Amino acid sequence: MNIATIGTSSITERFIDALGKTDALTFAGAFSRSADKAKKLGAPRIFTDLEELARDKSIEVVYVASPNSLHFEQAMFLMEHQKHIICEKPMFSTSAELTEAFQRADEYGVFLFEAFRNLYTPNHHRLKAAIEKVGPIRHSFLQYMKYSSRYDNVLAGEEPNIFSPSFSGGALVDLGVYPISLAVSLFGKPDAVSAQVVKLSTGVDGSGSVLLDYGTHTCTAMFSKITNSSLPGEISGENGTIVLDHVAPISSIEFTDRLSGEKEQLAVSEEENDMMYEAEVIAAAIQSNDRAVYEQYRSISEIVIHITEEARKQNQIVYAAEKK
Amino acid sequence: MNIATIGTSSITERFIDALGKTDALTFAGAFSRSADKAKKLGAPRIFTDLEELARDKSIEVVYVASPNSLHFEQAMFLMEHQKHIICEKPMFSTSAELTEAFQRADEYGVFLFEAFRNLYTPNHHRLKAAIEKVGPIRHSFLQYMKYSSRYDNVLAGEEPNIFSPSFSGGALVDLGVYPISLAVSLFGKPDAVSAQVVKLSTGVDGSGSVLLDYGTHTCTAMFSKITNSSLPGEISGENGTIVLDHVAPISSIEFTDRLSGEKEQLAVSEEENDMMYEAEVIAAAIQSNDRAVYEQYRSISEIVIHITEEARKQNQIVYAAEKK
Repeated sequence: MNIATIGTSSITERFIDALGKTDALTFAGAFSRSADKAKKLGAPRIFTDLEELARDKSIEVVYVASPNSLHFEQAMFLMEHQKHIICEKPMFSTSAELTEAFQRADEYGVFLFEAFRNLYTPNHHRLKAAIEKVGPIRHSFLQYMKYSSRYDNVLAGEEPNIFSPSFSGGALVDLGVYPISLAVSLFGKPDAVSAQVVKLSTGVDGSGSVLLDYGTHTCTAMFSKITNSSLPGEISGENGTIVLDHVAPISSIEFTDRLSGEKEQLAVSEEENDMMYEAEVIAAAIQSNDRAVYEQYRSISEIVIHITEEARKQNQIVYAAEKK
Repeated sequence: MNIATIGTSSITERFIDALGKTDALTFAGAFSRSADKAKKLGAPRIFTDLEELARDKSIEVVYVASPNSLHFEQAMFLMEHQKHIICEKPMFSTSAELTEAFQRADEYGVFLFEAFRNLYTPNHHRLKAAIEKVGPIRHSFLQYMKYSSRYDNVLAGEEPNIFSPSFSGGALVDLGVYPISLAVSLFGKPDAVSAQVVKLSTGVDGSGSVLLDYGTHTCTAMFSKITNSSLPGEISGENGTIVLDHVAPISSIEFTDRLSGEKEQLAVSEEENDMMYEAEVIAAAIQSNDRAVYEQYRSISEIVIHITEEARKQNQIVYAAEKK
């Protein structure tokens, strides 16, 4: 299947690099308002008009990695033209947009996948299979905290997209969705959400913590684009503890038995560019029209945005997309 | 100054061991309803009647390590007889008890200290002095999670004191107060508290997480007596990150500069029995009638119980002491 890309940031370059490592999808074109920028991606074909891309029947799938606030309109328009969509996280600004978009996908018989690169990897599946080893889970801790050079711009009085409420930015939706989506993939929908964030002058969060109440288990997710962290992830139950080096990608998974103290290494070696896995899984689901896989990932997207929306509400983070 | 102890559990043994390592206080007697148990502590004198202890003018300080729910009545009674009190954490069941007890201490001209052993050590002071290195603090993470063998009793259908609402038990007040008191000592009183816990069949919590909102900084504290954890503590700011091996005791403090990546080791080697430090600091404060030190620790106790009480309220954990 032929795929075209939207966006010219480093994440798009990384996705195109991943396409080169798999036969699942063929990189056939790139859209950008700037032809020069699109050319730099090395695309066989350049689109500067989204309608032209939409009408090109040779393109079956579109990877959307524009600024967050543009995803919705672009995805809605392209689905109307029978394109399957792989959309970068955070896929949409609100749960209302998400619901509408999934309805449109069904209506036009296409698939709409959120590119949670951390949920398609071999080690994600190994972690999921290993969880039962810890016994009744009682606490989990997952984090993605990394200082962003764009924060230097915020400190200089600017408002880069990723820290702007006009572009549906902030650490919660940019990095927080990694630990949160992992929690949702592993544990499902929480009963309740409690969130505290550090709000920046731009109006979105720079860092924060979210507690997910799973009744018999509390999950703590931390995120930041204004500090670094070296904390590993941890999932702990009455019988033992699993430690992950990180949430995206997961390179090591170590289980420790509480009583014996014995340790077990559960991770496999993965491709350096983990976006290859999402490209392969999503392409296979589209090609075989696998609704079971589709609905599993759709459900994760629905729960994740429910959580981030609730966390934003508790902390008065309002996007321009919501004021429309 | 002569000190007597109340309680016969392992923490009392540890405190008596600490007394042997310092000249600050002289172990002069032990109270227990059971003379046999008190004898095992090796006390020069055994009290089985609290009034007898109260009336003994040679005893100036009493260390209270009875079950949590008994602290209040014993401390109130002993202060009335001019005894200074060192009370194990959690000192009291409610903030109302705490306020009343501190009033009585003032009334009778005695000191009332909560034995947060983690707040009197050399490495605690080194950490406090090092904090400014990280620049504007944006996130901190502190935990005390350790599986308790008493939880096996809970699983067997029993209700050991430490997991009983009748004895003001639970992981939050037993272990959670270590990370929480450290946060309060370092960062002061939070603007808001959000807590989620795992409630046990006994009615108290077995584990949980508390978020402390410091406005420009979110502190995440985790605690558990039903799981283990190997997560270090972390305090991270815009300029760098401090990693602690643990909150009680702190054996290593490592600062990493964000820009240079350079690391600095800041901890000193401490005595194995860290209760020696609290005995020395508290004895010195009593002897020199140092109200500045006294009020500093009193303020920490006041803020900690405000936090744990709010966390309990949010999770419907009610003690028998509150139903009176």
